[in-house]
Amino acid sequence: MRPPTRRQEILHAAGDLFRHHGYHATSMRDIAGRLNLRGSSLYSHIESKEQLLREIVDEAADAFLEAAETDPEEAPAARLEQLVRGHLRVMVRELRGATVFFHEWRFLPEESRREIVARRDAYQQHFRDAIERGGRDGSFRVADPHLATLFVLSALNWSYQWLDPRGRLDLDGLGDRYLELIMSALGDEPRRPRRARKGDA
Amino acid sequence: MRPPTRRQEILHAAGDLFRHHGYHATSMRDIAGRLNLRGSSLYSHIESKEQLLREIVDEAADAFLEAAETDPEEAPAARLEQLVRGHLRVMVRELRGATVFFHEWRFLPEESRREIVARRDAYQQHFRDAIERGGRDGSFRVADPHLATLFVLSALNWSYQWLDPRGRLDLDGLGDRYLELIMSALGDEPRRPRRARKGDA
Repeated sequence: MRPPTRRQEILHAAGDLFRHHGYHATSMRDIAGRLNLRGSSLYSHIESKEQLLREIVDEAADAFLEAAETDPEEAPAARLEQLVRGHLRVMVRELRGATVFFHEWRFLPEESRREIVARRDAYQQHFRDAIERGGRDGSFRVADPHLATLFVLSALNWSYQWLDPRGRLDLDGLGDRYLELIMSALGDEPRRPRRARKGDA
Repeated sequence: MRPPTRRQEILHAAGDLFRHHGYHATSMRDIAGRLNLRGSSLYSHIESKEQLLREIVDEAADAFLEAAETDPEEAPAARLEQLVRGHLRVMVRELRGATVFFHEWRFLPEESRREIVARRDAYQQHFRDAIERGGRDGSFRVADPHLATLFVLSALNWSYQWLDPRGRLDLDGLGDRYLELIMSALGDEPRRPRRARKGDA
């Protein structure tokens, strides 16, 4: 692995500060201070604080969308499994960027916000497709695919609040447990016997 | 209903501005401007911006905790139903305060933050109790009650992002659908036939 460039270090420091103190409460001076840089030196790498936010949010959106590149012809339960595991993988690996993305994207200027909303909708659509197809082919039993999609994405998104990359469950363990809950919520019958055997209730 | 006091109007305006622009990006001048007040007049009602945030966050925490006052001896599925419906009721009725609570509480000074974390943990414990008891008495099948609790609360909490109090589902309809998903996730078997009959998949 190559050492991080100065630019990457700046993005990293800005992400940390935005995450813990919020975008508006973080100044360019704070960012420079974190890296023992002078303000003038920071500005030779980065145009503005807004540009930093934009880059951090874009990187997180890229990571989520890349993880959602799944085959629409795949069986719905298998596709949803890939989507859920992909989402949790991005969350655990890019917790800093994902947190800034969820909390601070609304402070971008309007044009950037519109782009992010469009990308978020495209992302959501992957989940919606899998859940709707699963409803049609009988893999899932969902009364309201739209609400079921919001439910699944809500359970995934809020996890940035409690995810601990050094916690007791590794990424695979967390994915297994979350998938059991999500698949059961969607009435994915074939999985239930396996789940009952594993259950410790 | 009595007309709101000046103090309530100030809390309302501050909540709106904190919700849409964030605590740090909102000045006392913005709040005064929203109410056509002079700054000096605002300060005759309110000590500081921080005090406003504290009151809004406390009010939301009160509303959530009050809604969670349930009988621990109640059957676990019935108790969880009350908790879920109570949570959604607070979200829909107090969306402004709940959003500020979720997003901005971290900007409170440390002592207040500690109090809020303690109250949040007490709130979470109601859900955890119901889910654990349900696991023990066979109402639920949950492999990991701790993670199941985080899953349920995540699905509930993130809803402030998409809840539309004027949307197609009213509070009862939203509660019904959310409960179907949550109870199925927890393997609440007795409800499944009812759900299958209602399903439109």
